[in-house]
Amino acid sequence: MAKTAVLVYSGGLDTTVCIPLLREEYGFEQVVTVTVDVGQPREDIADAEERARLLGTEHYTVDARAEFARDYCVPAVKANADYQGYPLSTAIARPLIALKAVEIAQQLPRVDAFVHGCTGKGNDQFRLEFIMRTLMPHVPIIAPMRERNLTRSEEIEYARARGIPIHQSTDKIWSIDENLWGRSIEGGLLEDPNYVPPEEIYRWTRNPQDAPNTPQMLTIEFEQGTPMALDGQRMEPLALIQTLNEMAGMHGVGRIDMMEDRMIGLKVRENYECPAAIVLITAHRALEALVCARDELRFKAQADRAWAELAYAGLWLDPFKESLEAFINKVQERVTGTVTLRLFKGSAAVVARTSPWALYDEALASFDTHDFNQSEMSGAVKAHGLPARLYYQLKQRRGER
Amino acid sequence: MAKTAVLVYSGGLDTTVCIPLLREEYGFEQVVTVTVDVGQPREDIADAEERARLLGTEHYTVDARAEFARDYCVPAVKANADYQGYPLSTAIARPLIALKAVEIAQQLPRVDAFVHGCTGKGNDQFRLEFIMRTLMPHVPIIAPMRERNLTRSEEIEYARARGIPIHQSTDKIWSIDENLWGRSIEGGLLEDPNYVPPEEIYRWTRNPQDAPNTPQMLTIEFEQGTPMALDGQRMEPLALIQTLNEMAGMHGVGRIDMMEDRMIGLKVRENYECPAAIVLITAHRALEALVCARDELRFKAQADRAWAELAYAGLWLDPFKESLEAFINKVQERVTGTVTLRLFKGSAAVVARTSPWALYDEALASFDTHDFNQSEMSGAVKAHGLPARLYYQLKQRRGER
Amino acid sequence: MAKTAVLVYSGGLDTTVCIPLLREEYGFEQVVTVTVDVGQPREDIADAEERARLLGTEHYTVDARAEFARDYCVPAVKANADYQGYPLSTAIARPLIALKAVEIAQQLPRVDAFVHGCTGKGNDQFRLEFIMRTLMPHVPIIAPMRERNLTRSEEIEYARARGIPIHQSTDKIWSIDENLWGRSIEGGLLEDPNYVPPEEIYRWTRNPQDAPNTPQMLTIEFEQGTPMALDGQRMEPLALIQTLNEMAGMHGVGRIDMMEDRMIGLKVRENYECPAAIVLITAHRALEALVCARDELRFKAQADRAWAELAYAGLWLDPFKESLEAFINKVQERVTGTVTLRLFKGSAAVVARTSPWALYDEALASFDTHDFNQSEMSGAVKAHGLPARLYYQLKQRRGER
Amino acid sequence: MAKTAVLVYSGGLDTTVCIPLLREEYGFEQVVTVTVDVGQPREDIADAEERARLLGTEHYTVDARAEFARDYCVPAVKANADYQGYPLSTAIARPLIALKAVEIAQQLPRVDAFVHGCTGKGNDQFRLEFIMRTLMPHVPIIAPMRERNLTRSEEIEYARARGIPIHQSTDKIWSIDENLWGRSIEGGLLEDPNYVPPEEIYRWTRNPQDAPNTPQMLTIEFEQGTPMALDGQRMEPLALIQTLNEMAGMHGVGRIDMMEDRMIGLKVRENYECPAAIVLITAHRALEALVCARDELRFKAQADRAWAELAYAGLWLDPFKESLEAFINKVQERVTGTVTLRLFKGSAAVVARTSPWALYDEALASFDTHDFNQSEMSGAVKAHGLPARLYYQLKQRRGER
Repeated sequence: MAKTAVLVYSGGLDTTVCIPLLREEYGFEQVVTVTVDVGQPREDIADAEERARLLGTEHYTVDARAEFARDYCVPAVKANADYQGYPLSTAIARPLIALKAVEIAQQLPRVDAFVHGCTGKGNDQFRLEFIMRTLMPHVPIIAPMRERNLTRSEEIEYARARGIPIHQSTDKIWSIDENLWGRSIEGGLLEDPNYVPPEEIYRWTRNPQDAPNTPQMLTIEFEQGTPMALDGQRMEPLALIQTLNEMAGMHGVGRIDMMEDRMIGLKVRENYECPAAIVLITAHRALEALVCARDELRFKAQADRAWAELAYAGLWLDPFKESLEAFINKVQERVTGTVTLRLFKGSAAVVARTSPWALYDEALASFDTHDFNQSEMSGAVKAHGLPARLYYQLKQRRGER
Repeated sequence: MAKTAVLVYSGGLDTTVCIPLLREEYGFEQVVTVTVDVGQPREDIADAEERARLLGTEHYTVDARAEFARDYCVPAVKANADYQGYPLSTAIARPLIALKAVEIAQQLPRVDAFVHGCTGKGNDQFRLEFIMRTLMPHVPIIAPMRERNLTRSEEIEYARARGIPIHQSTDKIWSIDENLWGRSIEGGLLEDPNYVPPEEIYRWTRNPQDAPNTPQMLTIEFEQGTPMALDGQRMEPLALIQTLNEMAGMHGVGRIDMMEDRMIGLKVRENYECPAAIVLITAHRALEALVCARDELRFKAQADRAWAELAYAGLWLDPFKESLEAFINKVQERVTGTVTLRLFKGSAAVVARTSPWALYDEALASFDTHDFNQSEMSGAVKAHGLPARLYYQLKQRRGER
Repeated sequence: MAKTAVLVYSGGLDTTVCIPLLREEYGFEQVVTVTVDVGQPREDIADAEERARLLGTEHYTVDARAEFARDYCVPAVKANADYQGYPLSTAIARPLIALKAVEIAQQLPRVDAFVHGCTGKGNDQFRLEFIMRTLMPHVPIIAPMRERNLTRSEEIEYARARGIPIHQSTDKIWSIDENLWGRSIEGGLLEDPNYVPPEEIYRWTRNPQDAPNTPQMLTIEFEQGTPMALDGQRMEPLALIQTLNEMAGMHGVGRIDMMEDRMIGLKVRENYECPAAIVLITAHRALEALVCARDELRFKAQADRAWAELAYAGLWLDPFKESLEAFINKVQERVTGTVTLRLFKGSAAVVARTSPWALYDEALASFDTHDFNQSEMSGAVKAHGLPARLYYQLKQRRGER
Repeated sequence: MAKTAVLVYSGGLDTTVCIPLLREEYGFEQVVTVTVDVGQPREDIADAEERARLLGTEHYTVDARAEFARDYCVPAVKANADYQGYPLSTAIARPLIALKAVEIAQQLPRVDAFVHGCTGKGNDQFRLEFIMRTLMPHVPIIAPMRERNLTRSEEIEYARARGIPIHQSTDKIWSIDENLWGRSIEGGLLEDPNYVPPEEIYRWTRNPQDAPNTPQMLTIEFEQGTPMALDGQRMEPLALIQTLNEMAGMHGVGRIDMMEDRMIGLKVRENYECPAAIVLITAHRALEALVCARDELRFKAQADRAWAELAYAGLWLDPFKESLEAFINKVQERVTGTVTLRLFKGSAAVVARTSPWALYDEALASFDTHDFNQSEMSGAVKAHGLPARLYYQLKQRRGER
């Protein structure tokens, strides 16, 4: 059996260059390329297939979109996915991509290495390798870009020398990543935090100035934390997210411009377009605010933050994540109801919400006052801030004021 | 000396009714009314003065606007004031109002009671009484509205019977509170969380549909966390907040529609207009994201949350607040720089930020890579998620998967 | 049917006085007394029965010990029950006592009120009434001691005048509460935080000086967080806790001397004896430290703290508690193993621990190093503290040092 | 000028082997050895000096004990230093050791590298290098042990071949680290979490069985969080810690047996002896519990935890640490008073505490009740758990119970 490498393959320059590198420099006879469809542009999938054919790899395209929507994006909604303002679009797709590569590998007669195209500065190396190393711990992992520090022009030259067709992207300015849950744009001039992003970086969201002049009202129905319907029409998560990306994108909703702390401690400027993610999480939060009381909301925010840090780090199989989700899912049992939003010129604002589990209810409110005499509150008011008042007495006695 | 009550006086129906009540039912000979100007409408101040004159109280109007801006709103910016989405506009004014009433009381020859017009369901009774009880612990506090459970129509009748002029507000629909830091609207149909707020409730913010069709770029300069200038023009906090309320309000920025957990545990729907607060806090957060690293940001968020809960509870003199502010102010030493926002049709989006303390800097970045060899990261990647991987091994050994 | 009150009855002075009070002052024809056995001294149960007989109430003694151990103490172990150092012994019994009173009430032909003997300064009024009000919201609750502010001598006089036998406890010095999970002693001279507690306050724990001169080794086996066996002998929770109270108490283990913040904000000095609780929680923590990784342990500590605050407040039916327990129980799936402690002269020290889910394991460790080359860690070390180093560069540039 | 390496020198095998290695393998002509006295055994300092002389290095011994006590141990007390149960004894000494090496380096005519003896699995590499890289970023750092993966016997052979005297420690069983703040013992059989530590590993603490049969009462006075006196005798921090190590050690106090999560994610079993640290932190916590109210205590615990994680990671110069200490030090303004402990057979128990800032005070308590009518608490009790009760109503309505 031929010495075989399984390459996580996007079809882009970095991973394409890996193919001849693996043969020439690492001595692999067989390169298996795996492209996982998580909602990136159709042409990227096609490019990957075409190049794999040209370069003679054993190629697999795995359509993981429905699974991504159901098992990755929906849990992200339940956890109000938010790492420093970023809804974790790239982050949550990486474990699934690695998982699919592992599934292919497990069916091959021989696997000698996993290969990915990540560099040594980013987050994705951590995310992909964690999954591979967890599920197939004895298979070595090779990261040619990290090991060889190739520049972009060296890569292009290398590819051209081998007759690999390269898009006219020599002049590529931005580094893009795209899936169902969002689109990220980074690099080039955007690295300067004080550079105002040009309109051209956006593809999914219309410029708010060019968005419709009339607001669009939208209702989202949730059942136990899962979005089930848009404007009364039930949809599977995949269709719902796709529809919402278009609908909200048309109104210029979903743009994010932020500073982000990467895993190794570098701070970078990032721009994202995440129309569906932003709308769903905004609506979901509003519903939780209706059905959970203060202490639970405060703790849920901490659990969500912990979840987001695990998701950012790609630790999708961490038992801690399962424990957090046990909490999150228990809370979701009450996160059922309908939220109404107004989409308009770049913003998505919640304007109404209702739930059978609402902790507000006219009937309940009146019920609760039937034996509530306002004047009985005097004791609570007198007890309020008691320790602070004692402190103040002490301070005055000591003449410190 | 006459038996004297010091009444925190807004000029509204509740507190106006308190004046004859105090004389007739509580036996006070002298009623001192204190109206504190924290930025409420000019006509409210004038009304209070006029009614006090009519009812023959010893009246004081205290202009506390500059102090409110400098010592209450600016600290709120530094703490990114946020209680469940609410920038604490009413909440932070209450301690100052009580403080001014105390200052007046301390100069009177005799004070037998403080009086306020709060009911027994709300938050303000806690906020006002805490300050009074802390600073003048031996003065009793009377809350006639809480004690007597008067309905609005009973109050109106009572006032009319005494010839007190009442605005045609019998048909008053919403309960409004207004100061420099924001405007709140609650009650009536708005109590239903699923009722879409009508345009008429808003006074400070233009309907986004009617806002200018061209975005406005705005720069805000901060020094050590304090906003110092708008578009390059230095201003005192009071002027800066006033200007920003108009500027952002014109673009429809600052509307908040939310569920809020009150101190006694009731959940209520609240609507706010806080243009300056929203813009300043948004900008301030963006600057902190540039100068603080991940762990500090995470902890700052916890400190901010604790600060907001104290502020919401009106515990302005709690020593815990001083300790939190020691942390917050230490962080602010680096929160210097300029943030650029785009105001447009209801949204305020940060598009650029710069700071001498930015943890991003091209020069630094290149400095940092001069001895950074990407391939050296392999160890960190291998160590990533180590405990989770050990767990997974155990799980597989046990055949649980 | 006679107008009926259901009284939570301890047999002590306060609740005994309530019986004639309810008849004479509140007009109840029928008083139902409910004594719930949660492990208090046998003689207290007997006293209650005897006095109830004397005073002619319809009396119920409910043996809730096994339920208390299984459904209240065991969850407390899983949550490492700790409110400021207090393992929540009295706190977690209160909801169960109220629950049993409710169960009796639900079977009576008529119930016009619940009655308890708590005062207005303590925690128990909150805990008992929450359960009653949640489960039978329409039944009024009467708290004669809170309403009438009776002093101890007034109570004694009142009782004597009605021929109620009172123990010679006129000279009662300490206020005691006792159940399976611990014994609390408060009041009198102990109120002074600087008063060294006299040996006489302790009943369950031997003076460490008089404890055996030889340490006792003890093993506790846990399955999914539940203690199942002592020294290899399987026991039901009730027997296990009883045995451990004696065993550890004999070695002087379980004394707690602390300041405690009560619910209404008063700080009080409290003394407890909780031998079984301290040993079980110490062992349980040590096991969690073996099977959970750092981030999960940190978060578990937060969840435990939130759980303890709910338990302290008696909010046993709060949905937030159910959500927290979903998290806690998910973690417990791995909290299986055996912990060895050494009991000696007042201390219980963990000296060994083992678990099939231990994240330490020689085999795993060696497995993990088979492809771990130490020198690969250089990158992680270089990246360590990167943002802090950038900050330092900026600071030096600015000549601030 | 000769090519010079500055070696952080303990005098142990690892760092001693580095000296010829640096000359022979790394081409340094001049090796400067720096031994920092932070309270390790006198003979270790002497050994280091002797070996440095033998090997002909330019040797510096820096007595940093007073500075360590004052600027490292005292802040650790204020922060209740606790990482998973470990009072951070080794951790907080590392930055100081590195700092002293930097101070020497800054006075040398030429420095080409810093050198340390840490391996690639431990924490110390992170701690030492962070300080060096922060303060002298352009000086390369060499870690020969990490780079060369030498085994202990290879090291011994290498040393013997060069005539370097090696203690008979070939049979060394435990790995020891020792300074003023504590002593750590790890490795060998102790790696097994289920191995009961033998008595021989302890040097500072007497076996509790052999400790005095009479308890010793001890008072510690704090001023603003700093321990100032023992049993009424004022002492500098260094003397106080030394005295307390002996006093508490004699009573067998200070032993810790725990699982610890290292920085790279490995869980290891650690044993420590930290008599002074345990007693001071126990006393300090008790004092904080007397002067801080509940919410502040809860938040202080979070700040302490964050501080401990920074200290564990050796990030002594992180601006986040300065911010945390601003909070901690503000709280300490009230942490003044005296704590009484009982030392006996392995335990240190607080039995009394007093402070001018105590939030308990008989006079205050009575003051506070002068207008406190118990019956006024009824409203607070009725409002308690309101949202949970609403939830319960909803649940029953839905027939889910």
